[in-house]
Amino acid sequence: MARINPHYKDLQGSYLFSEIARRRAAFLKEHPNADIISLGIGDVTRPLPEAAAGAMRAAVDDLTKADTFRGYGPEQGYDFLREAIARHDYQARGIDIRPDEVFVSDGSKCDVGNIQEIFSQDAVVAVQDPVYPVYVDTNVMAGRAGAYDRETNRYQGIVYLTCSRENGFKPALPERKVDLIYLCYPNNPTGMTLTRDELKLWVDYAKQNGSVILYDSAYEAYIREEGVPHSIYEIEDAREVAIEFRSFSKTAGFTGVRCAYTVVPRELKAKDADGNDIVLADLWNRRHTTKFNGVSYVTQRGAAALYTPEGKAQIAALVDYYMANAKLILDGLKAVGIEAYGGVNAPYIWLKTPDGIDSWAFFDKLLREAHIVGTPGVGFGQAGQGYFRLTAFGSRENTERAVERITRLGW
Amino acid sequence: MARINPHYKDLQGSYLFSEIARRRAAFLKEHPNADIISLGIGDVTRPLPEAAAGAMRAAVDDLTKADTFRGYGPEQGYDFLREAIARHDYQARGIDIRPDEVFVSDGSKCDVGNIQEIFSQDAVVAVQDPVYPVYVDTNVMAGRAGAYDRETNRYQGIVYLTCSRENGFKPALPERKVDLIYLCYPNNPTGMTLTRDELKLWVDYAKQNGSVILYDSAYEAYIREEGVPHSIYEIEDAREVAIEFRSFSKTAGFTGVRCAYTVVPRELKAKDADGNDIVLADLWNRRHTTKFNGVSYVTQRGAAALYTPEGKAQIAALVDYYMANAKLILDGLKAVGIEAYGGVNAPYIWLKTPDGIDSWAFFDKLLREAHIVGTPGVGFGQAGQGYFRLTAFGSRENTERAVERITRLGW
Repeated sequence: MARINPHYKDLQGSYLFSEIARRRAAFLKEHPNADIISLGIGDVTRPLPEAAAGAMRAAVDDLTKADTFRGYGPEQGYDFLREAIARHDYQARGIDIRPDEVFVSDGSKCDVGNIQEIFSQDAVVAVQDPVYPVYVDTNVMAGRAGAYDRETNRYQGIVYLTCSRENGFKPALPERKVDLIYLCYPNNPTGMTLTRDELKLWVDYAKQNGSVILYDSAYEAYIREEGVPHSIYEIEDAREVAIEFRSFSKTAGFTGVRCAYTVVPRELKAKDADGNDIVLADLWNRRHTTKFNGVSYVTQRGAAALYTPEGKAQIAALVDYYMANAKLILDGLKAVGIEAYGGVNAPYIWLKTPDGIDSWAFFDKLLREAHIVGTPGVGFGQAGQGYFRLTAFGSRENTERAVERITRLGW
Repeated sequence: MARINPHYKDLQGSYLFSEIARRRAAFLKEHPNADIISLGIGDVTRPLPEAAAGAMRAAVDDLTKADTFRGYGPEQGYDFLREAIARHDYQARGIDIRPDEVFVSDGSKCDVGNIQEIFSQDAVVAVQDPVYPVYVDTNVMAGRAGAYDRETNRYQGIVYLTCSRENGFKPALPERKVDLIYLCYPNNPTGMTLTRDELKLWVDYAKQNGSVILYDSAYEAYIREEGVPHSIYEIEDAREVAIEFRSFSKTAGFTGVRCAYTVVPRELKAKDADGNDIVLADLWNRRHTTKFNGVSYVTQRGAAALYTPEGKAQIAALVDYYMANAKLILDGLKAVGIEAYGGVNAPYIWLKTPDGIDSWAFFDKLLREAHIVGTPGVGFGQAGQGYFRLTAFGSRENTERAVERITRLGW
């Protein structure tokens, strides 16, 4: 008799976005003419850069001719893309990453979800709180999270690294030894970053404790300030302790096109049951080649074109566009005295709800009084209670109108 | 201290295709001018159907305009594709499958590799031998396979269903109770199919034993004969016991474009630890939405266009082309007295090596004497020893030349 993976029963409902949709629909039923602006979901809205689109059209043409047709590509990605990534995203910044350490995939969600498979089931996992839910849920499915505690809204087997205004949303090192540490910088949802010195504390911790840092850098392109590391490999010894995840989704409008990559340096090792050092790049390669068949050739051509001069200029313009939105939101919130974070090196603004009302009460207020949908901070974890996330990914016009409505409310 | 998933150490080297490449390279070094024809890897060679290409170009255009731009799509696939699949691949054949039971993905390799995650770790797994290695390797990674026995070349925890000429490559039902049964029809590598009555035996077995059949139907489009089921759901009660996997890869030249789908009927259930019935579609949906972010919009538009009248005609022409190759190979082998199977409802020909030589000796003979590369049957499992796989996916010209060379050899 087939039985299910028992750990799926430990998953908590994917409550957040369905509850948002429910409340929005209920409000629209009462007020069918309400002109709702969404600054909620972290999805881009601007068109695909023409450099990518042109390369994708040409790639489709390649596939229609027998002599340029491509069937299965290498599971790890075509050399033309792995080389462009290594050269432009790393070597050009003086970072030593080679093409064979780059694994191209169809999305960072897949990669950050799948990476835990190569580690032992008893690995102790640390996550930031608030946190992108995929880190937690995929470890729940694998049986690493333990029981869910409804009082604290936390899994008993997960180590939570609280990010609060008191610590500047920069969590302290874990008090107990942990094996895997998920860090996301620039952070989703808080929009905050670490300095090199701050990030070095984590690399040093990992080195001392034999931990592996799973560094989600999906928003790297949004870094505007000097002194903020673009890659964890800017930190000495990070090649021995960190896996880095990056994506074309938010950089180049690829959320619907699907391309990302994961970097696993050859120096990064973990122990087998006999205490031998095992090169994790070999394990990830085995996983990748066994359970994945490569990214669409059309998509990979599109991604590679982002590294041309035109592609780079078009990406820079996209990022400028969204970051101008971020500034509008941040300035608007501050003008009415709302405490807000992020939005400087990231497309997310993390605001403290006024008067200490809870995240969902603020959601309802914003929806009812300003017809704006955002994301309640508590949806990202208990430490997000009393916070709220707005995104800069809307159109300029909608962002301006939303800011005007928020400031008009009076606080 | 981070430790690795210990089960990765139980994986056997992905020996087959690297060994083929090694022997081919060694031969080319000795004979640099040899004109080698590959009938080895199961990858298509004909151009993408124009219906799909046109839809993909239009989809790229959609992405370049703000008002038709698409970001994240539904993880399960766009309704336009799920509905086309349900209508054309199932309902048009009188099979009751609804769009919400169809989960679109970027490849059957991913789906057949990931499906095991929703089952308990102690599930007893049965596979055919010879077999597509992904079914086995993904269960090894999950810790279900037990120790590898070098004498028998089999995992002790896996139940192997031997397919031999003695049983017409149609395995007997398992002697012990199994929970998960991987069946592939039309079969890779043997090219054989089951009749409805033969498939019904498996559905009945699964129903009696509470097993789940994982039915890989990637080559369904190659079925030419009446009486061969195109879907397991043509069999009564199969909705209660089977998950079906299909792909656009071999049907429409999508190996480089990446699109497939998995059908999980709502009646299909498995037990939780308390003995409750759990709907597997809900578990697969949870897995899909947590670890996957949908297939490229461009790809999905291309796949949907295959269901237009032009798309269907172009697919039919592609399949005809490859199946004419299959007939050439099959007839050529038989003309020189080589025993061969498959090639009638599948693009694979499974031949018995003459004089009982082993699979690798035959590989070497064919490479040295005819400059043809194929796939040694033993690479698919111990029961493939003494067999050899040729594929019909080459160009007509290469196939004709290969057949001529083989027949010229004399046996």
